[in-house]
Amino acid sequence: MMKAPVEFWFEFASTYSYPAAMRVEAMAASSGVELHYEPFLLGPIFVSQGWQDSPFNLYPAKGRYMWRDLDRICGDLGLPFKKPSVFPRSGLAAARVALVGAKEAWGPAFVRAVYGANFADDRDVSRPEVIAEILTDLSLDGAVILERSNARANKDLLRSQTEEATRREVFGSPSFVVQGELFWGNDRLEQAFASARRSGLP
Amino acid sequence: MMKAPVEFWFEFASTYSYPAAMRVEAMAASSGVELHYEPFLLGPIFVSQGWQDSPFNLYPAKGRYMWRDLDRICGDLGLPFKKPSVFPRSGLAAARVALVGAKEAWGPAFVRAVYGANFADDRDVSRPEVIAEILTDLSLDGAVILERSNARANKDLLRSQTEEATRREVFGSPSFVVQGELFWGNDRLEQAFASARRSGLP
Repeated sequence: MMKAPVEFWFEFASTYSYPAAMRVEAMAASSGVELHYEPFLLGPIFVSQGWQDSPFNLYPAKGRYMWRDLDRICGDLGLPFKKPSVFPRSGLAAARVALVGAKEAWGPAFVRAVYGANFADDRDVSRPEVIAEILTDLSLDGAVILERSNARANKDLLRSQTEEATRREVFGSPSFVVQGELFWGNDRLEQAFASARRSGLP
Repeated sequence: MMKAPVEFWFEFASTYSYPAAMRVEAMAASSGVELHYEPFLLGPIFVSQGWQDSPFNLYPAKGRYMWRDLDRICGDLGLPFKKPSVFPRSGLAAARVALVGAKEAWGPAFVRAVYGANFADDRDVSRPEVIAEILTDLSLDGAVILERSNARANKDLLRSQTEEATRREVFGSPSFVVQGELFWGNDRLEQAFASARRSGLP
């Protein structure tokens, strides 16, 4: 039997998506599971819940805990981490590029590079110029790819991604979907892949 | 060096506190770590964040996910689980009794029995009569203990517990505190005890 793929739903502004994004490709490879990168925007979903800002800003004790927890998680994984000087940073420009990259070989490396730029290097990934620099650092043509990412069809595709996330009842990032079953959070990455591996058993 | 104790801050209405409460005593014993049971009420903390109900009721997609996630967690742990017909159920009466029990040998068994009654047997643990039955099932004098739990000094103590939780920046249940460091959620139980074990190293 074929194993079910894992859908990785991610918003670039999301903090806990950083360690997940850095681990997900290796986990897919070692699991022998197909991985689908599914960028989306969490902002519209938060707004529909009445939040105009990240809950980590709206609820300060929860926010202070999150930064401490993320620091510990990155420490345990040996991932560099530096609290960004601005939070959240819009993931719009990066998500549009990630959608272009979802069909190309450089896609996964781009996703990791954006998360690292934001959460390890404190670079302003909300700015298209920074996204272009990240693409250039990957030996890609930043200007051309940015232009492709801003094509009407691609903008519409990102909008439909966010609608698709809502249909899957995604309410946070990172989320993993395996055969319609939702797993939320970096803490559930292992469980999601275990579910996909089991799906391949006769 | 003495190992630092683990403070276990819990609210009886909390869903994820059920698997944590069922595991915490065995984890403390195998870690050689002192465990402090710290019942408190999450309601006043939620109200201070503008929530008049559980966030799992206020945000339906998050709520539906939580029940599915809890079902999977209990399945993995071999814990019986049945979604309560009413959620949340007030933990006030049980928390007052747990405070009495915190200084007595029956305390931990009572805590587990209340969580099991709510989340495995769908009993209405908000009712003092049910709490008395649970005490009786533990071969205790339910009427006498309930009366002690309703003494003015014990009610004040529960109020000060909730203030103390706020001072520790506790914003959810279960929470673990080790040397002032906060660990939130059933998912962080292992990490909290690892921190306590490390504290005993020279």
